[in-house]
Amino acid sequence: MSRKTKVLVIGAGAIGAYYGARLSQAGADVSVVVRSDYDELIKRGYYSIKSHQGDFDFAPSQIMNNPKNFDGVADYVIVATKVLPNIDTVALLDGVVDDSTTIVLMQNGVEIEAIVAESYPNNEIISALCFICVSRIEPGVINHQDYGHLAIGTFPTGITDKSRLLGAMFNKVGVRCDVSDNAVQARWKKLVWNAPYNPISVLAGCVNTKQIMDNAQTAQLVFSVMEEVYEIADALGVGFDYEFLHQNIEQTINMRPYKPSMLLDYEAGREMEVEAILGNAVKAARRAGVATPHMDSVYALLQLVNSKFTK
Amino acid sequence: MSRKTKVLVIGAGAIGAYYGARLSQAGADVSVVVRSDYDELIKRGYYSIKSHQGDFDFAPSQIMNNPKNFDGVADYVIVATKVLPNIDTVALLDGVVDDSTTIVLMQNGVEIEAIVAESYPNNEIISALCFICVSRIEPGVINHQDYGHLAIGTFPTGITDKSRLLGAMFNKVGVRCDVSDNAVQARWKKLVWNAPYNPISVLAGCVNTKQIMDNAQTAQLVFSVMEEVYEIADALGVGFDYEFLHQNIEQTINMRPYKPSMLLDYEAGREMEVEAILGNAVKAARRAGVATPHMDSVYALLQLVNSKFTK
Repeated sequence: MSRKTKVLVIGAGAIGAYYGARLSQAGADVSVVVRSDYDELIKRGYYSIKSHQGDFDFAPSQIMNNPKNFDGVADYVIVATKVLPNIDTVALLDGVVDDSTTIVLMQNGVEIEAIVAESYPNNEIISALCFICVSRIEPGVINHQDYGHLAIGTFPTGITDKSRLLGAMFNKVGVRCDVSDNAVQARWKKLVWNAPYNPISVLAGCVNTKQIMDNAQTAQLVFSVMEEVYEIADALGVGFDYEFLHQNIEQTINMRPYKPSMLLDYEAGREMEVEAILGNAVKAARRAGVATPHMDSVYALLQLVNSKFTK
Repeated sequence: MSRKTKVLVIGAGAIGAYYGARLSQAGADVSVVVRSDYDELIKRGYYSIKSHQGDFDFAPSQIMNNPKNFDGVADYVIVATKVLPNIDTVALLDGVVDDSTTIVLMQNGVEIEAIVAESYPNNEIISALCFICVSRIEPGVINHQDYGHLAIGTFPTGITDKSRLLGAMFNKVGVRCDVSDNAVQARWKKLVWNAPYNPISVLAGCVNTKQIMDNAQTAQLVFSVMEEVYEIADALGVGFDYEFLHQNIEQTINMRPYKPSMLLDYEAGREMEVEAILGNAVKAARRAGVATPHMDSVYALLQLVNSKFTK
């Protein structure tokens, strides 16, 4: 019998714990690094996953509050922290990976891989996008409300054995995981949704997707921001079909009213991922010589709003 | 002895009452139409003006809650209501003016004169801009904190005897009143300040002018919106020197931290003058073929924020 695949999840909040739990279901040996809920989780010893697809428990192999305490070598280190200026992904990985370890960035935003790739040039990096509604109810209790599929791909391009294996483990337990050969493009395509709805939901007075789309002017602003994302991706050589914008709009109109993650963060008084979602996109736009006046506007407003959470 | 100049102020809130009081000081016979404070004002019989230039009282000749009750013919009807979709300026003037009456629009925004001019083609219209910090403390009590000068001009252009006379009355009592021969241009120049600071103060998390200008990105957004106002005015044939934008920025940086009127309205739960200040400007831009992506962005966000006050 082959040895179990070893997985370390750094930042086992709702997203990290949920997908870690699924990999455990798939037979992997999964350990977690958890910061704020560490004491309670050590006492409990396991997560309760309340899922619309059926509840289950997840007992991590090791529970730590610091990645440095991890015993062993992981085949996959999944980084599922928020992307915030004061969270140093590179430092979190220090001493945890050896050359055989694949680093999985299960995070929001664009252009988040390069800094990790530069610091860990010998490691394979997989970029992972989550399409899921999941939240932490209390320490150790995760509520999986809807969706759940993943899109993963080796950074910057290509399909590898390790990405196929990871995809297969998820698919085995019913979590659809698409393995893409263009991880960077996949991130820009996800940004088509994130870049407009996240900031507008906060700036237009704490509104959900339906309220945004029911208003002709904010719906137009959504589309203007989407077009700018399209232009940037195109200029960066990871363009996609323009029709994707219309499909994206259509899907959002047809889904239940939804509060984007930034709005949830804002309402909870938590720092929002403004740089990952908007700042990095705007920087890439400047580099590529693309004008993004609509995105610049919401970015400027939102980072001043965000500053009250970072002081 | 010549008869007193008769003035009717429609909408005698802080602005209308203050300038009406000054005209009364200058010797005019001033009556007021006041809606929400009518009962209290009838009881009191006069306004108390607390001014940093010296306190004084103002007893209107007539106090009404409906312009139709005005007895006599006014030389000047000053409209000092807010410019909101549910306030019908044309209807307020119905039955109040005869051909000798000059209509003074002492209001915010741009492109607010045409609808009045069309309905009252035989009346002279004066457009008036107030540069003042003044607020209503309680019914009949007005607090004049700072500034106070006026810019007036006959709509659409030119200088008339009636505009000179009005200017002279104000100047006589120490209220600087510049009589311009280009009222429309003066309104667009005032919009250079109003269009950026008003919406950004609300959208960026209830911030004052200093907080906006201390943040490099919102300061840049201010300038981008200013440039769009400049472009529109230019395309409409009422352009001004580009250097005016820099002077405007400089003045704002040098003044005490200031909360724009929209922020005061927002914090008080009152409808904001979004259409007068942004909507009309954007409509004019479309007419003139000028792209205004930054203004479009803040306008879209703000009118959805505003919708919670208009329901």
